[in-house]
Amino acid sequence: MRIARAVNNLIEAFERLPGIGPKSAARLTYYLLNVPQGELDKFADTLKLLKANTKICSECFNVAETNPCDICSDKNRDRGVVCVVEHPLDVLAIERGGGFAGVYHVLGGVIDPLHNIGPDEIRISQLIKRLDDQGVKEVILALNPNMEGEATCLFLKRLIPKEIKMTRLAHGLPVGADIEYADDMTLSRAMEGRREY
Amino acid sequence: MRIARAVNNLIEAFERLPGIGPKSAARLTYYLLNVPQGELDKFADTLKLLKANTKICSECFNVAETNPCDICSDKNRDRGVVCVVEHPLDVLAIERGGGFAGVYHVLGGVIDPLHNIGPDEIRISQLIKRLDDQGVKEVILALNPNMEGEATCLFLKRLIPKEIKMTRLAHGLPVGADIEYADDMTLSRAMEGRREY
Repeated sequence: MRIARAVNNLIEAFERLPGIGPKSAARLTYYLLNVPQGELDKFADTLKLLKANTKICSECFNVAETNPCDICSDKNRDRGVVCVVEHPLDVLAIERGGGFAGVYHVLGGVIDPLHNIGPDEIRISQLIKRLDDQGVKEVILALNPNMEGEATCLFLKRLIPKEIKMTRLAHGLPVGADIEYADDMTLSRAMEGRREY
Repeated sequence: MRIARAVNNLIEAFERLPGIGPKSAARLTYYLLNVPQGELDKFADTLKLLKANTKICSECFNVAETNPCDICSDKNRDRGVVCVVEHPLDVLAIERGGGFAGVYHVLGGVIDPLHNIGPDEIRISQLIKRLDDQGVKEVILALNPNMEGEATCLFLKRLIPKEIKMTRLAHGLPVGADIEYADDMTLSRAMEGRREY
């Protein structure tokens, strides 16, 4: 049996997205066959306009509707505290958590020699420039706790002037987790970082 | 932080798809922000054309490029054997497996009183008409082995003339499975359906 070309094209388009395999792609496509044409058209237009209607903030490099973005132009935010993240999605996650009232700096990646990403491929020089220009007092490193994240943190530690305070997000047990199932590394970090109760 | 409207619209569009939650939707959207505009446009056009360039076969009700579909119009296929399935995706799965050279009938659902789907909401009358018109010798019921599938099978059993052979797909252990982890129902069905070796 030949799959109809229009169906196959959409399956292939979905398959190119991260985390969507051939079976999920087929399921999504056949689901959309039962959706009204108007909704399909709306979905298609949203896709086309995604990049046209978004800007990259020239200060923090986050994805936003305006430049500078609403975080960078918010007068209630403390511009003396910069939280360094890998991707715009990390900004979203930290904002969702609440509890942070500073500004961000999106690196756009981490140092990863295996994939040919060196310090010049990510926005490290822009970060250093911001620190100089804006009188930053604290840099919070919110990079993923893996090999590449650690390497990037070490690299930044050498570059960032000593007078600026550098902190990292705490490692430990996630809220709601079971000690029984926690991995050794997490448990030893949680023990190391224990706080007075 | 306000998420850019263009980004939010696409996240919402993805969230409406089955099996995609808020986090996956955000991940897909932010991934697409890094994709060239040309590819986004192609994706959008594929979506718009999905329904315009596909037809529903008027014989088997499968999704196809032509009407009748290439299975129904294939002279090498045995039109005396009809495999009844719930959705077009099931046709795809059975064709992928190979080993079936008859034709299909896509019901478009199963009887499911809890969701207000009765026998008239799915293509049962069309199936009965086909059996009369085309001299069908065997009906293979390839419906999912759950409550609704069983109910639909029982309903069809009462409607389909006794002279037509009715069969169901075999229940048993999936290939590659571990007997240790098989559920009781599957094991008892596998025992029931055992065959001479």
